[in-house]
Amino acid sequence: MIQGIGASPGIAIGKSFVLPNWEWELPEQKIDVADLAREFERLYEGIRTSKSEIEQMKDELREVVGTEESYIFDAHLAILEDPVFMNEIQGIIQRQYKAAEVAVKEAIDHFVTMFDLLDDEYMKERALDIKDVGNRLLKHLLGAPEITLPLDTQPFILVAKELSPSQLAHLNPSHVLGIATMAGSMTSHSSIMARALGIPLVVGLESKVEEPIQTGDTLIIDGGTGIIHLEPNEELTVRYAELQRRQQEANHRLKGIASIRPVTPDGKEMELSANISSLKELDIALGSGTYGVGLFRTEFLYMDRHRLPKEEEQFDVYRSVAEKLSGRPLIIRTLDIGGDKQLDYFELPEEENPFLGYRAIRICLDKTDLFKTQLRAILRASAYGEVKIMYPLISSVEEVQSANALLEEAKRELVAEGIPHRSDIEVGIMIELPAAVMIADLLADEVDFFSIGTNDLVQFTLAVDRMNDQISHLYEPYHPAVLRMLKTTVEAAKRGGIHVGVCGELAGDIRALPIWLALDVDELSMSANSILPIKERLLCMKQQNSRRLFDDLMVCRTSEAVKQLLHDFNQLAEREATAGQHST
Amino acid sequence: MIQGIGASPGIAIGKSFVLPNWEWELPEQKIDVADLAREFERLYEGIRTSKSEIEQMKDELREVVGTEESYIFDAHLAILEDPVFMNEIQGIIQRQYKAAEVAVKEAIDHFVTMFDLLDDEYMKERALDIKDVGNRLLKHLLGAPEITLPLDTQPFILVAKELSPSQLAHLNPSHVLGIATMAGSMTSHSSIMARALGIPLVVGLESKVEEPIQTGDTLIIDGGTGIIHLEPNEELTVRYAELQRRQQEANHRLKGIASIRPVTPDGKEMELSANISSLKELDIALGSGTYGVGLFRTEFLYMDRHRLPKEEEQFDVYRSVAEKLSGRPLIIRTLDIGGDKQLDYFELPEEENPFLGYRAIRICLDKTDLFKTQLRAILRASAYGEVKIMYPLISSVEEVQSANALLEEAKRELVAEGIPHRSDIEVGIMIELPAAVMIADLLADEVDFFSIGTNDLVQFTLAVDRMNDQISHLYEPYHPAVLRMLKTTVEAAKRGGIHVGVCGELAGDIRALPIWLALDVDELSMSANSILPIKERLLCMKQQNSRRLFDDLMVCRTSEAVKQLLHDFNQLAEREATAGQHST
Repeated sequence: MIQGIGASPGIAIGKSFVLPNWEWELPEQKIDVADLAREFERLYEGIRTSKSEIEQMKDELREVVGTEESYIFDAHLAILEDPVFMNEIQGIIQRQYKAAEVAVKEAIDHFVTMFDLLDDEYMKERALDIKDVGNRLLKHLLGAPEITLPLDTQPFILVAKELSPSQLAHLNPSHVLGIATMAGSMTSHSSIMARALGIPLVVGLESKVEEPIQTGDTLIIDGGTGIIHLEPNEELTVRYAELQRRQQEANHRLKGIASIRPVTPDGKEMELSANISSLKELDIALGSGTYGVGLFRTEFLYMDRHRLPKEEEQFDVYRSVAEKLSGRPLIIRTLDIGGDKQLDYFELPEEENPFLGYRAIRICLDKTDLFKTQLRAILRASAYGEVKIMYPLISSVEEVQSANALLEEAKRELVAEGIPHRSDIEVGIMIELPAAVMIADLLADEVDFFSIGTNDLVQFTLAVDRMNDQISHLYEPYHPAVLRMLKTTVEAAKRGGIHVGVCGELAGDIRALPIWLALDVDELSMSANSILPIKERLLCMKQQNSRRLFDDLMVCRTSEAVKQLLHDFNQLAEREATAGQHST
Repeated sequence: MIQGIGASPGIAIGKSFVLPNWEWELPEQKIDVADLAREFERLYEGIRTSKSEIEQMKDELREVVGTEESYIFDAHLAILEDPVFMNEIQGIIQRQYKAAEVAVKEAIDHFVTMFDLLDDEYMKERALDIKDVGNRLLKHLLGAPEITLPLDTQPFILVAKELSPSQLAHLNPSHVLGIATMAGSMTSHSSIMARALGIPLVVGLESKVEEPIQTGDTLIIDGGTGIIHLEPNEELTVRYAELQRRQQEANHRLKGIASIRPVTPDGKEMELSANISSLKELDIALGSGTYGVGLFRTEFLYMDRHRLPKEEEQFDVYRSVAEKLSGRPLIIRTLDIGGDKQLDYFELPEEENPFLGYRAIRICLDKTDLFKTQLRAILRASAYGEVKIMYPLISSVEEVQSANALLEEAKRELVAEGIPHRSDIEVGIMIELPAAVMIADLLADEVDFFSIGTNDLVQFTLAVDRMNDQISHLYEPYHPAVLRMLKTTVEAAKRGGIHVGVCGELAGDIRALPIWLALDVDELSMSANSILPIKERLLCMKQQNSRRLFDDLMVCRTSEAVKQLLHDFNQLAEREATAGQHST
């Protein structure tokens, strides 16, 4: 048994195919001065071919996994246009009289070593990107063939040192049962893509594997737990096959409830919506019978590119999402960058505490041109569906009023230009700052809906950056203080007569469901993959029981006590549900 | 008129004395190999002399300005022991055959240039320290005389390019009316010392002064506003003399109320205490008739040194503060490092968001040895006065219980060792996280008192780092959300029957006084300099009127509205007070 990092869930059982490393035979002799021009021509030709290949891959991928993931390749294109990388290559050719392929190889090695040295997760990922692009360029310069996977064999589990997004993009999911890589992390581009493609993936095996895995070895990989079994015995194989069967069965069962209305046995209907940031996720959401989109993150439109997206580009995306939802509500959150989300072309200041800094609505109310471009694009899309606007990181009545003033200005412009839009578009805000909770009654007078962002709310309430390993154990969504804040917020919304939803991670956490039922929130918006499991539980959980539980939760003195009560309650609910399944 | 940076308040009017720059005549010829040993001996001798001089200066300064400021010189001692700096000097002597003084000069220039290049406020300050120490060393190597100030003339305003803490330490406050320097910042060591010494100081004049100021020029400097007038006309001189007179008069008037009980006209008595971090501040506090010390910051004991302070060292300090207070309460806050406060010898992790990170009680509950050493020292000091313990950054009941368990352990140890201490020492917590506010009722059951830390509370509630220029305008203590949190906290304390104070900056902000009166808090703890102005206002402000005002504040929708109402109320109070003074 090898314990890796589970990077894309699911179980795969099968024979392994070990991907050979790219090995190049490079010309040793120096080039002649007279041939310099020819080498440069070869280099430029290689770059051109690589670029068009990447463009094509990006287009293909957009069809399969959606817009967000395909933007990964914009980062690759950017490398081929990066003056520093290119100068390095040209310098080696010109000053050392080396062949173009040698120069490319040395430049790759130089940058990869440098970035690796920095010991920074982000820079390591950039090193992988450079390697990926550089190898593509090398391949063209050497006229080497694309490494192909066996198509004539049984489906296999792919084992590789590391897997680049380019390589992943060429995989045929029906041939690849799962993937195991030595390098890699949960957050790498490749892991994001594997999850989008639905291929089980375990990464980070580097120091864990004693003897190298050989092609033909039998493997079990569990992309949920990160566990790998090499040459498993029969008992283990049977056990995992059973687990795999049950997972598939559960998936099947869940698919069966996709079209059922999410109502508790005692009649509370809950809107179960999806948080999405790409069209691919929208497909999963629609397949799960989503009520709508409770949070459309627009950041991906701004990231991994060279300039701000134009109004027209944004409009196209918003409109196509709105149309695909055919009448279901779509809440578009305005730009939420800053904090841990940076844009390459938009210089944000270095900050001591970026989470407490220049972010989200604060940037938008400062850079009003940028903001109004987005507001216009959203307004225009509102003519094509049930579109709503949501502002993030609101702390005061004044901020809502300032944002709304810009919205009205955008509407007036569109009216003057004769462009169709929804003049009565609904406007809501994220409740994710303690300040917003404390004045939720005042804010309820200003907007049409609230959506509680539990992630940031918990972080600020407890002053805990959950990405900080040293104190992440203090990040506690089930803290009594958080429960009270949730109660305050929902009650203010109810009294103000406005719609209230939840779009933080807690909305998709099955343990929290009784809380939402007790508080009687209108909507839960979550990762598309969570909709069906939450619905399944909802169908057998009484709102009335949840309310009794909540009264007990409100007098808990510690998070442990809260979690214990919730655990007991949920376990009972689960047992009852299983009993129910068996009896039907 | 020149607009500089006001770094130490007060007005000075007088003739200037321009401090000449330290200029050295250095030997040009190289040394002989045979003389290497002699040069090293000279260098070591110079270092020894410099060290003992600094030690002496530190001791003298401790008498005058207190413990915290004198620790500045520990940083200087550390430089003389810094292997990198010393290696640089020794290398120049050994490899380039240069005289010790030349080597020292070149090493200073090297490090100062390097640190200046980094364009970082902290490193620039370190560069100043190196220059200061290096120049002292140079002076000894060259046998140069100390630059002396004219003692035979009238008191003067000192003008210098920059002023080192060493130079400041040698000034006689009765000869120096004020200081103006070209370089410098509010936060430099020299500025801290000038404030402690009570000398008006304006810094940062570098690019503002068109023609250099000459010795003998007449100057007016206002260390409050940062304004300097060169060769002022009579009208201006009269105006500033009047302003100076009024400031002195107000100071005199305030001194007159030092021994009066702080009671409102309708009988609400408020404990007005001091926040201190040095013995010097304690003197000012006692001179202002302080009720006690509401916040004793213990960080300075841990900063600017090479190792953790021992139990004995801490005990000595705590005991002497307790004894000096002769029976007045002393609230000692346990170590509050992390965030923006670092210790050189205690490696804290690099954090993305240090304010939301490994800090204060979180470190103490993790490094229990460090914490228990401090708890033992505090407990031991409790035998010598009215000592209480306060934990910072509390977010949960569990944290209080964990800290108290360690406190009980420390008590048991002391009992076993037969060391006297107060076994029923009072324990309180800072309320400075939104979480603590939300569960203030639960926390009130666990402790003897609350002290509201408004600075952090505002930062977390609004998610605004107030040190971040880009968004510091959003740091708003008068935000309606903050008012509600204050109300929640005080009400919980009252219902729990425990003492409640305020020790954040808002406690010393005269505008906020009606809020504290309305909420009926027990104690305000503030910078020692604010006690008398706050008391003066308190003596003429009715609690009853404040309560009526507060009802209006609680229905304000915006911070602007809150501030406007407060402004009107305070202006009226001020007018009534002035009228009262004139009639007496």
